[in-house]
Amino acid sequence: MATWTESQLASIDKMLNPRSVAVVGATPRMQYGGRFLNAMLKSGDRVNVYPVNPRYDEIMGVRSYPSVSDLPEAPDLVGIVVPYHQVLNVLEESHAKGAKSAIVISAGFSERDVDDRRDLQDELGAFARESGLRICGPNCLGVANVQDDIWPSASSRGSDGLSGPIGLVCQSGASAFGPFLTRAVEEGIGLSHIISTGNEADLDFCDFARYLLDQDSVKVIAGFVEGFKDGRKLIDVAKLAAERGKPIVIIKIGRSDLGSRAARSHTAALTGVDALYDEVFAQYGITRVQDYDELLEVSQLLAHTRKPVQSGVAVVSHSGGISSLTADMCGQAGLDLPPLTDEARDGINDVLKGFGWAANPSDVTGFANSESFPEIMRHMSEQPRIGTLVVASAGADAQAEQVIAQRDASERGLAFLWTGTRSSTSGLSRLKEAQIPVFYVPDKLALGLKTLLGYHRWRDGRLKDGFAQIPEVSDSQAKAVADLKSLGRPTFSEHESKQLISAWGVPIAREATAGDAEGAVAAAASLGFPVAIKADSPDILHKTEAGVIRLGLGDEEQVRSAYTQVMSNASQAAPGGTINGALVQEMVSGGVEVIVGVSYDQQLGPVLLFGTGGVTVEVYNDVALRLCPITRPGALEMIDQVKGSALLRGFRGSAPADVDALADVLVQISRMAAQLEGTLAELDINPLMVLPEGQGVRAVDALAVFEG
Amino acid sequence: MATWTESQLASIDKMLNPRSVAVVGATPRMQYGGRFLNAMLKSGDRVNVYPVNPRYDEIMGVRSYPSVSDLPEAPDLVGIVVPYHQVLNVLEESHAKGAKSAIVISAGFSERDVDDRRDLQDELGAFARESGLRICGPNCLGVANVQDDIWPSASSRGSDGLSGPIGLVCQSGASAFGPFLTRAVEEGIGLSHIISTGNEADLDFCDFARYLLDQDSVKVIAGFVEGFKDGRKLIDVAKLAAERGKPIVIIKIGRSDLGSRAARSHTAALTGVDALYDEVFAQYGITRVQDYDELLEVSQLLAHTRKPVQSGVAVVSHSGGISSLTADMCGQAGLDLPPLTDEARDGINDVLKGFGWAANPSDVTGFANSESFPEIMRHMSEQPRIGTLVVASAGADAQAEQVIAQRDASERGLAFLWTGTRSSTSGLSRLKEAQIPVFYVPDKLALGLKTLLGYHRWRDGRLKDGFAQIPEVSDSQAKAVADLKSLGRPTFSEHESKQLISAWGVPIAREATAGDAEGAVAAAASLGFPVAIKADSPDILHKTEAGVIRLGLGDEEQVRSAYTQVMSNASQAAPGGTINGALVQEMVSGGVEVIVGVSYDQQLGPVLLFGTGGVTVEVYNDVALRLCPITRPGALEMIDQVKGSALLRGFRGSAPADVDALADVLVQISRMAAQLEGTLAELDINPLMVLPEGQGVRAVDALAVFEG
Repeated sequence: MATWTESQLASIDKMLNPRSVAVVGATPRMQYGGRFLNAMLKSGDRVNVYPVNPRYDEIMGVRSYPSVSDLPEAPDLVGIVVPYHQVLNVLEESHAKGAKSAIVISAGFSERDVDDRRDLQDELGAFARESGLRICGPNCLGVANVQDDIWPSASSRGSDGLSGPIGLVCQSGASAFGPFLTRAVEEGIGLSHIISTGNEADLDFCDFARYLLDQDSVKVIAGFVEGFKDGRKLIDVAKLAAERGKPIVIIKIGRSDLGSRAARSHTAALTGVDALYDEVFAQYGITRVQDYDELLEVSQLLAHTRKPVQSGVAVVSHSGGISSLTADMCGQAGLDLPPLTDEARDGINDVLKGFGWAANPSDVTGFANSESFPEIMRHMSEQPRIGTLVVASAGADAQAEQVIAQRDASERGLAFLWTGTRSSTSGLSRLKEAQIPVFYVPDKLALGLKTLLGYHRWRDGRLKDGFAQIPEVSDSQAKAVADLKSLGRPTFSEHESKQLISAWGVPIAREATAGDAEGAVAAAASLGFPVAIKADSPDILHKTEAGVIRLGLGDEEQVRSAYTQVMSNASQAAPGGTINGALVQEMVSGGVEVIVGVSYDQQLGPVLLFGTGGVTVEVYNDVALRLCPITRPGALEMIDQVKGSALLRGFRGSAPADVDALADVLVQISRMAAQLEGTLAELDINPLMVLPEGQGVRAVDALAVFEG
Repeated sequence: MATWTESQLASIDKMLNPRSVAVVGATPRMQYGGRFLNAMLKSGDRVNVYPVNPRYDEIMGVRSYPSVSDLPEAPDLVGIVVPYHQVLNVLEESHAKGAKSAIVISAGFSERDVDDRRDLQDELGAFARESGLRICGPNCLGVANVQDDIWPSASSRGSDGLSGPIGLVCQSGASAFGPFLTRAVEEGIGLSHIISTGNEADLDFCDFARYLLDQDSVKVIAGFVEGFKDGRKLIDVAKLAAERGKPIVIIKIGRSDLGSRAARSHTAALTGVDALYDEVFAQYGITRVQDYDELLEVSQLLAHTRKPVQSGVAVVSHSGGISSLTADMCGQAGLDLPPLTDEARDGINDVLKGFGWAANPSDVTGFANSESFPEIMRHMSEQPRIGTLVVASAGADAQAEQVIAQRDASERGLAFLWTGTRSSTSGLSRLKEAQIPVFYVPDKLALGLKTLLGYHRWRDGRLKDGFAQIPEVSDSQAKAVADLKSLGRPTFSEHESKQLISAWGVPIAREATAGDAEGAVAAAASLGFPVAIKADSPDILHKTEAGVIRLGLGDEEQVRSAYTQVMSNASQAAPGGTINGALVQEMVSGGVEVIVGVSYDQQLGPVLLFGTGGVTVEVYNDVALRLCPITRPGALEMIDQVKGSALLRGFRGSAPADVDALADVLVQISRMAAQLEGTLAELDINPLMVLPEGQGVRAVDALAVFEG
């Protein structure tokens, strides 16, 4: 992964661990410049802080310098809080001085949505990359190294000394230092770093996430992203994060057009096709959430819980109503609550003595607040199929201590559903201090546990199967591509398109081209009746509409007559166009129609599409998408994801279809899509017929288009 | 609606407004009996409170009586906190004394899941109904008249003097007096009543909801239900609630089997088919939510916001990131954020002077905390298409006062997305005091607004169209039913079934019965080729599998041969069964296949099913369900709800189908289902062919089954 240079990561490191910081545009007033200076001065015993403002000799008791050039040393970091038109000058001066990094708080760039401001922002970015003086922003609120208590930021907020293993990266500064920071502190969730990236003229979300992956103290990366500047960097970060076992949890704008519009209008980042992002996040193990509290609570759970030893969840509460709602939400999230073992049930009943209900979930009434609760938790937790114990209650400190002791003594994970007030100090404060993952409503708890289990299941799969690799293009594949290129046009006929996929091992329906009616009859006789006849032309992309396709021709006479009709219609449909002749093709019956397609996303690259055929794709949008290439297990997951795949598994008594052969095609086409990036523009195999088990698949129609 | 008697409602009234309360099983210890007495003594200046326990002369400074018989007056309410086996005795004694109502805190009944305890609970219920001494519980925590500060409950919690227009009814006492009460107080959301119904031996959720509808102070009914004892009462309550404009918002267990199992195990209530409940809630205007905070926040929004004057929502924030996430969630919820009018945009830009972004959503930066914010809010709010203003911020008291003033001065509604900490006192406390509806995460805000708009849209529709009524059965319909009954069997052949639906005006495919091959040929000639032939038998319910159906017969010879085959297969499929002969039927082509079905839910009654035909129903479960009868607008909504209905609207260039005729059939069949409850057991019209616009529909196959 050469996406990131060492000097780039070193710049970020200086930004977060500066020993000297200039604050250009510092003022005594507690606006952006004043707040930045004030925040830095809190680390004044460890960091040299230099206000830069020619209008003052001293600000907040510290000597102020007229310009960066006048500073007594080259600062590790320059904080820039000057009007937008002065920013580039300050950067140039800082570079000349030998500064290592810059944070541009100043706004007035691409978020103004006018060309000259966008151009100016591009200049900042270009300067940063050329000079090596890498920058965060503009239009951000800065960053915070929370664990070392260094806050190069224009926010006045702090963490009250709380820190932890979650690195937070947000494009929106007001969100980073607003709801995320303040609620993290309120919920007792410790952050290691807070980074607001703003308009991302230079360094972006992925760059900072990449940096955080190198920090031992960071266990989870949490983010709030309006749009990615470069989707491919995200994939590289996600792969490295998977390797290192550091989950990425993000909120991403784009669930709706309204959000995309709003985000684009003020960050000018591309939001991308949201449905594709959902699939890509799943493919690369990124967890997507959609609210502030959820981001923090899920991150906390992932950061402070080991991989569950089993997938089963045990739920215990002081209340039947609370336990059944919790179980209901767990069930809705697809979690498994195995019934109690006889031993556990008897053990708990020995405690309950006729009260409550020993089951999963358990309703243990007042015993949740008794000296017997540890015994109950032990019985619930230490069962063979249980990996996580959920305590749904709101007891006092005594209960909290019991719960903490249970967590500390057991290899099973533990999560708490707190059913009291969020402001409770009794009990809740102890749980927070001990980093017990706490949720406040049952559905969020259930979604959190689903994420935890899903993440580790996904990661185990990746550690086992690896990410798909792009193999070398074989000689025969290269020849097939060269043959098409030699035609000198970007669109190809069905027959030509099939030569391409055939080179990647996709079986195609038996067919022959014919130049006249008698040739068609001879081809049909050789293939065996019935046959189909289609005009073969790169200039007729929609054959049905053009009337150049005839199916189920049963005898010579029908073939002869169909040939004439089809060729006549073809001439009308593509006057002056290329018509290679007619394609005479076997009728493939007894299979299930599916479609396989390739397209290229501007941000993310080659995308494979799979869906079952006909009406279901169009009415239900029942398709799976993946970035290419994919692995074979990935192909099987893709098939499973499509509801219409029920038709492949033997529907209404029909024979199961050859899913193995279909998976092979998906893998091969995904490789082709990756290998031919820059050459191939799109590909559709529609329909691909999936025959009964053992009989393989046949591409019945195909359409390839190259980059023009 | 005669479901509720006056004496029953009067009993509930005594329970919530008692002037005298006996607490049987009161003790000095702060367990259930002691807590109940303690809670009641807080109203000791307004209520005569009588501890009843032969082991004490005095408890908590109040004279204790040996038994209810010894009390100086007949108590309005008896609180019962004695072992389960003594409860019936206490009830009998209380009835003899003239007590008006009882709350049974005691547990040990059906929640123990053993027959004798269930029987004992049934005895309590029967006694209550026969004696007129109506009871709440057993296994509950009692009730609270929050607005009048009377707490006949075994909970030690109170509301700190906070009350409001939301009546809360929960089966789970620990939930009612746990997360719901404590978080309501924490969030500043006022409740009027808290009712925990426990096992519902007598009075149930619906009874209390019905009572609350009569209370002027109650504007919204919030509930947490594990299962309904009687689904029909729920419908009656919902209809009355709609009439009075008092929304019902509930959490109902049953999203998953795990939840249903857990709820059943400890309340023994039927949880019902959850998907049906979802549809019924939508049909009768009940809002379903799934977490504690959501129930409270949505109820607060509904209670304190008028019907929006327009559906449009305007969002303003101090932050671009916060406003775009809010807009994204609004978009996901299907809300409309109309672009600003020129006037509003110019007005806001005059304030912003080059900062921020005047749009919808607006990012007004620091101006959200300035004296200009009222002007900005006015511009955002007072646009023709805007009905609700959303402020997404976390300012100090000054901002809160501005927001409250905006709400008070405008006919537009206002909701607040609080992006600070939940424990904030600055700003947030003022908003709570002023009953501004506050949400804490954008997605919940968006769902809340969607509920608000959806509720009023639904209610307007009901006020306009009314609920569907059950018309009288006509003479010809009665005759059709009698004809079938006279056959003396519960299952009917296709032809017989079609006579039934035909009497309700459903057009059927032209057909004739034939007793021999030549008769079939004659019938076919008269109908016109091609035809279908099917064996007509009440004993062959699956015709395809039995091989007694032949389609598309094009000439006399095919008809003759098909007749022989079909009749021969029929004899084999139903040896000794009734075979009426063969049904010769026109082939109906050019239509879209749909299915219409009727079933009866044990709890809710007659249910109409609609789906588009073939694979889509089975693979995608793409059906709509409604309780019967439905209105014509309801039928159109039902059609719209099914995704596959895209096929009816002219798919891939085909002509739009006759949706009007389809809606007529849905209405008619829904009426039939309601009219024939107790007679009809199930009905399937599959397929019903919907022909192009103006050409109506044809029932091609039908199967009716009567109660055996």
